[in-house]
Amino acid sequence: MVTRTVDLRSDTVTKPTEAMRAAMASAEVDDDVLKYDPTALRLETEMAKIMGKEAALFVPSGTMGNLISVLVHCEIRGSEVILGDNSHIHIYENGGIATIGGVHPRTVRNNGDGTMDLDLIEAAIRDPRGEIVFPTTRLICLENSHANCGGRCLSVEYTDRVGDLAKKHGLKLHIDGARIFNASVALGVPVDRLVQAADSVSVCLSKGLGAPVGSVIVGSRAFINKARRLRKTLGGGMRQVGILCAAALVAIQENIVKLEGDHENAKFLADGLNKIKGLQVESHLIETNIIFVDIKDSTITGEKLSKILEEHGILVLPESSSRIRIVLHHQISATDTQYTLSCFQQAMAGAITNENGV
Amino acid sequence: MVTRTVDLRSDTVTKPTEAMRAAMASAEVDDDVLKYDPTALRLETEMAKIMGKEAALFVPSGTMGNLISVLVHCEIRGSEVILGDNSHIHIYENGGIATIGGVHPRTVRNNGDGTMDLDLIEAAIRDPRGEIVFPTTRLICLENSHANCGGRCLSVEYTDRVGDLAKKHGLKLHIDGARIFNASVALGVPVDRLVQAADSVSVCLSKGLGAPVGSVIVGSRAFINKARRLRKTLGGGMRQVGILCAAALVAIQENIVKLEGDHENAKFLADGLNKIKGLQVESHLIETNIIFVDIKDSTITGEKLSKILEEHGILVLPESSSRIRIVLHHQISATDTQYTLSCFQQAMAGAITNENGV
Amino acid sequence: MVTRTVDLRSDTVTKPTEAMRAAMASAEVDDDVLKYDPTALRLETEMAKIMGKEAALFVPSGTMGNLISVLVHCEIRGSEVILGDNSHIHIYENGGIATIGGVHPRTVRNNGDGTMDLDLIEAAIRDPRGEIVFPTTRLICLENSHANCGGRCLSVEYTDRVGDLAKKHGLKLHIDGARIFNASVALGVPVDRLVQAADSVSVCLSKGLGAPVGSVIVGSRAFINKARRLRKTLGGGMRQVGILCAAALVAIQENIVKLEGDHENAKFLADGLNKIKGLQVESHLIETNIIFVDIKDSTITGEKLSKILEEHGILVLPESSSRIRIVLHHQISATDTQYTLSCFQQAMAGAITNENGV
Amino acid sequence: MVTRTVDLRSDTVTKPTEAMRAAMASAEVDDDVLKYDPTALRLETEMAKIMGKEAALFVPSGTMGNLISVLVHCEIRGSEVILGDNSHIHIYENGGIATIGGVHPRTVRNNGDGTMDLDLIEAAIRDPRGEIVFPTTRLICLENSHANCGGRCLSVEYTDRVGDLAKKHGLKLHIDGARIFNASVALGVPVDRLVQAADSVSVCLSKGLGAPVGSVIVGSRAFINKARRLRKTLGGGMRQVGILCAAALVAIQENIVKLEGDHENAKFLADGLNKIKGLQVESHLIETNIIFVDIKDSTITGEKLSKILEEHGILVLPESSSRIRIVLHHQISATDTQYTLSCFQQAMAGAITNENGV
Repeated sequence: MVTRTVDLRSDTVTKPTEAMRAAMASAEVDDDVLKYDPTALRLETEMAKIMGKEAALFVPSGTMGNLISVLVHCEIRGSEVILGDNSHIHIYENGGIATIGGVHPRTVRNNGDGTMDLDLIEAAIRDPRGEIVFPTTRLICLENSHANCGGRCLSVEYTDRVGDLAKKHGLKLHIDGARIFNASVALGVPVDRLVQAADSVSVCLSKGLGAPVGSVIVGSRAFINKARRLRKTLGGGMRQVGILCAAALVAIQENIVKLEGDHENAKFLADGLNKIKGLQVESHLIETNIIFVDIKDSTITGEKLSKILEEHGILVLPESSSRIRIVLHHQISATDTQYTLSCFQQAMAGAITNENGV
Repeated sequence: MVTRTVDLRSDTVTKPTEAMRAAMASAEVDDDVLKYDPTALRLETEMAKIMGKEAALFVPSGTMGNLISVLVHCEIRGSEVILGDNSHIHIYENGGIATIGGVHPRTVRNNGDGTMDLDLIEAAIRDPRGEIVFPTTRLICLENSHANCGGRCLSVEYTDRVGDLAKKHGLKLHIDGARIFNASVALGVPVDRLVQAADSVSVCLSKGLGAPVGSVIVGSRAFINKARRLRKTLGGGMRQVGILCAAALVAIQENIVKLEGDHENAKFLADGLNKIKGLQVESHLIETNIIFVDIKDSTITGEKLSKILEEHGILVLPESSSRIRIVLHHQISATDTQYTLSCFQQAMAGAITNENGV
Repeated sequence: MVTRTVDLRSDTVTKPTEAMRAAMASAEVDDDVLKYDPTALRLETEMAKIMGKEAALFVPSGTMGNLISVLVHCEIRGSEVILGDNSHIHIYENGGIATIGGVHPRTVRNNGDGTMDLDLIEAAIRDPRGEIVFPTTRLICLENSHANCGGRCLSVEYTDRVGDLAKKHGLKLHIDGARIFNASVALGVPVDRLVQAADSVSVCLSKGLGAPVGSVIVGSRAFINKARRLRKTLGGGMRQVGILCAAALVAIQENIVKLEGDHENAKFLADGLNKIKGLQVESHLIETNIIFVDIKDSTITGEKLSKILEEHGILVLPESSSRIRIVLHHQISATDTQYTLSCFQQAMAGAITNENGV
Repeated sequence: MVTRTVDLRSDTVTKPTEAMRAAMASAEVDDDVLKYDPTALRLETEMAKIMGKEAALFVPSGTMGNLISVLVHCEIRGSEVILGDNSHIHIYENGGIATIGGVHPRTVRNNGDGTMDLDLIEAAIRDPRGEIVFPTTRLICLENSHANCGGRCLSVEYTDRVGDLAKKHGLKLHIDGARIFNASVALGVPVDRLVQAADSVSVCLSKGLGAPVGSVIVGSRAFINKARRLRKTLGGGMRQVGILCAAALVAIQENIVKLEGDHENAKFLADGLNKIKGLQVESHLIETNIIFVDIKDSTITGEKLSKILEEHGILVLPESSSRIRIVLHHQISATDTQYTLSCFQQAMAGAITNENGV
């Protein structure tokens, strides 16, 4: 019998807190498509300030935040964007920038730490005075922290250098900052400084920050004006959206300060998992809240292990037959982490002694 | 000094009721992108049942509902859609079906009652065995009630005949049912019967029904499965969206029954406005909650008149220098309607006697 | 037994003349994708000069000429083009501007003479500072002469006024000049003057001019540079294309002067056909080389009549069961025209006396 | 003073032979858009037979051939194609499949021999029942011979295995066969056998085969029917195109047999160049007609060396400051090859002794 649920599938699974629910219930709202919703405007003002940019726009999801950002920077037909071959935009967003926006993606290899080599980025740039057979590079995308690279962080120095490269070639720089606050906290760099080189940033409110719904994109006023129009085109303009924005304002207040704890829990859990026979975690590389657990025991698969854990109330996502992904968040306590570790230990012990288990 | 606000700009401006706020505050939620949010699933089940279709999907807006529907039916490159030249999709949705979806719009003239002549629709159909220079018609779109045609309703007989025509030619039929409940109530036809001929319907929850945010699209299970994927591509997949769905469930319970009152208020107001010197309203054609007021007095413009009304707390949208649009909804009482009429009377009287007014 | 063939299906069916064949056989050529083909460059220089524009580009077809022109003017996502509801681009080019280019077409009613009312054009314009739900108008398209309006010509005055309107609103003006030389000759206006107001013109070489293949687009140098890149993207860049350009240079020399004769033949034929019982031609409206023949006799269809004519070597295209299209060109002599008329007379006489004929 | 020109920039630069010119001058032609051109039909029938496919279509360029093929296989919105990161389609065709067709490219690393590892291909496949965040893989593209990998050939075994993989996953296989005859000759495998596993092949007529203009795509009848319509949409439908097809028919007759000689010349030249101090050519990897010459002497750049050679009538394309590309073709004789080698020897000798040269 399961006595508790520890949901580690993603940091998107958090439930709204009581404070968020109260804020939603009492939110002052109006029609945001007509730009009258005061709570939406307040959230946008607040986020623009935090991120150090002129303006901000609330969008229903991180996917829309990235899609709008790429499409605004690449508003001219025949644009190419340089992005990591392991980036969320390239792998997990339905190829929307191409299928919806007609933007040609040019991938550069992501290193294990989420960076792309600067010389490879530069070699991939193609300008409109170049060969008639080339599209025109108009944008570079970074991701910080980098989900598929185990939540690792891009340093401010690296980000600045990519920004310099972009400027040198007349390109824009967009940061997929779904977890930019995780990176800011882990690096000990103020978030506005961390994204200073970027022309736009997409920030998720419903991942580590724990708001029920939404992301915000930030950039120049001109960028946001175009983004607002494109949001309408895509169908992301919502009416009394202040309801959701009220929760997001609480999320910013309540949960940024908790990210450090999530990282500590991740580190503790990763260290423990790495000591379990049959599992391997590069725990020395854990910087934020994401853990990839590699299964080195041929008698158990990721799916099987997930199944066993689920029976004990531990929810995780098997990435493949030999890899499980775990994401920490503010609704996972230190005790939950210890419980999780102990369940893993038992599961692996049982699985190893009993091949026919489950 | 303004003592009250009567907001007639649109039926999108309604504020969530106390019952909706309570429902949002206590909504049971989970990650809807992972398909686990119970309240979202409940709303979708409920709406599918009401509309008489297999399945449903919550989307952030009516624009996204229409965009997804058109794009799913026209998923093959080179598709053409037949729709009214005065339809919301063609005029007020950023041309998204073409600019985002590459679907070619072929317009047919909307009659004053929102219909398109059946023989004109049929003449516009082009099939893939036809001339090599033609795109392939794959979809017909209707709008019911029809916003730009003064909220007039398409009868079930007309809708059925268009459905027959679509079937005969192997086409799909989509209904932009942003205000389909208004039409259902006005016609006295159950809504599932009214849309029986349609392969998909987009239904707005945040217009007449008064929910803070969202629309629902309904159709076959296969259609909705494709729609769900496309919603993700567009960035319309939201996490703990049960918050919004909880309010929508209340809206369905509370407000469908109030639409009849909105229509009565509209009829009363239209009759009254039509009697004011300098104004003209085709009040005998008012079927639902939308009124177009034509200004026949050359000494006052729509903008000026709106300004005067605003000083008395009446908010309306000038469509042009000689036309004002008024939309009734559940937060406009009969008393508000009388007050509005009286403000119009005074404004027109004042404007007429005093050309230099305002 | 058929003793001759009179091919009136279109002016695209002309065969290359001996002079063209000789020119092709001896053309000096090189790789035009690398911009080295001297004959292509010569044709482009010549056409730019004739049309009074800075630069020109050879393209494989009129469809590509129009597609490239629209897409270059509407290179920013979210563009709308205003064009005639009966225009070739809208009806006969596969909806390519939307399905390939994502450009939203906004149609205005074509009058019988091919014009669109200026006030309707102006009412359709939507600018980027306008409503957030509107795409941005960036282009107006005219067609001169207008194929679907019976080859009628737009006057230089009308064209200039549309050009002024475009300028006033910051829009571009493109002319689909597939048959612009027919218009120029019919109006007695030099072709460069006739298109003076246009930012771009697509001119067909393989219709009235009789070249085997190709069109040319003309415009500013900046426009043509973008067009050249887009031509490559679409796959319209060809290698030793000087072969085709050599024929086109001959076509310009040989055939512009023959257009007047085509128009005379068309007028003669139209007058004659209109006198035949059961046929109706608005022969007083014939300005160039296109004739629409309406069948007013219920005992014969367009298809049947075409079939009878074909047995006598007369090839025409039935547009519908009650309409046949005839197009004159330089390989139809006055004698051919008389023969055609006489075949029509016999066919209609026979058809009328013998309902079971064919 | 230059006494001869040896044009090694590409195999696209060949001039039409006398036989081709004669064939063009006497070609029987008609309107190919209406499908009446007998010479176009003859070429298409012939090419379909040679390639072992049901049907064929003439297109203006290899770029259009690939674009049409990818777009027909990926006709449903949300499609992804797997292709080499060094492939012509990905690097040198303007990103057209994404910018024009909205197809999302997913690249797999090209090995030096033009292959992609089968397990990497398989790992990249994503099917429509998979994660909601994935586009749907519908196509794998190979390139044979592989231009950017030095003209190396994919074996029939490799091609068959990729074909099996495609079938297993319900995908289509397209081969960019711009130089498929070079591969066939080099491998000693009949061309129809070599492409047996492919659903479509794009074959260039104006590269090694020496026709002035055009490519042909081959595939099933259903594929070609869709391709024909899309060709019209893109503007690639041409009128009396039999002119060009007549030359192509001669090219097939005359020049396939000469490819072996081109390869011998390439091998001879590569071996010789590799012996020159300061140059490096992987001459043991030369399989067909393309040579990459790497400059290992820091005192001379690719541009400078090209310039010196040009003064002696040798035309080559510098790919970068340290690499020159050479392409052999039927208008380069063995003597030309020897002359080229000797010019390289002198240039490098001079350049090395005289740093300030040129």
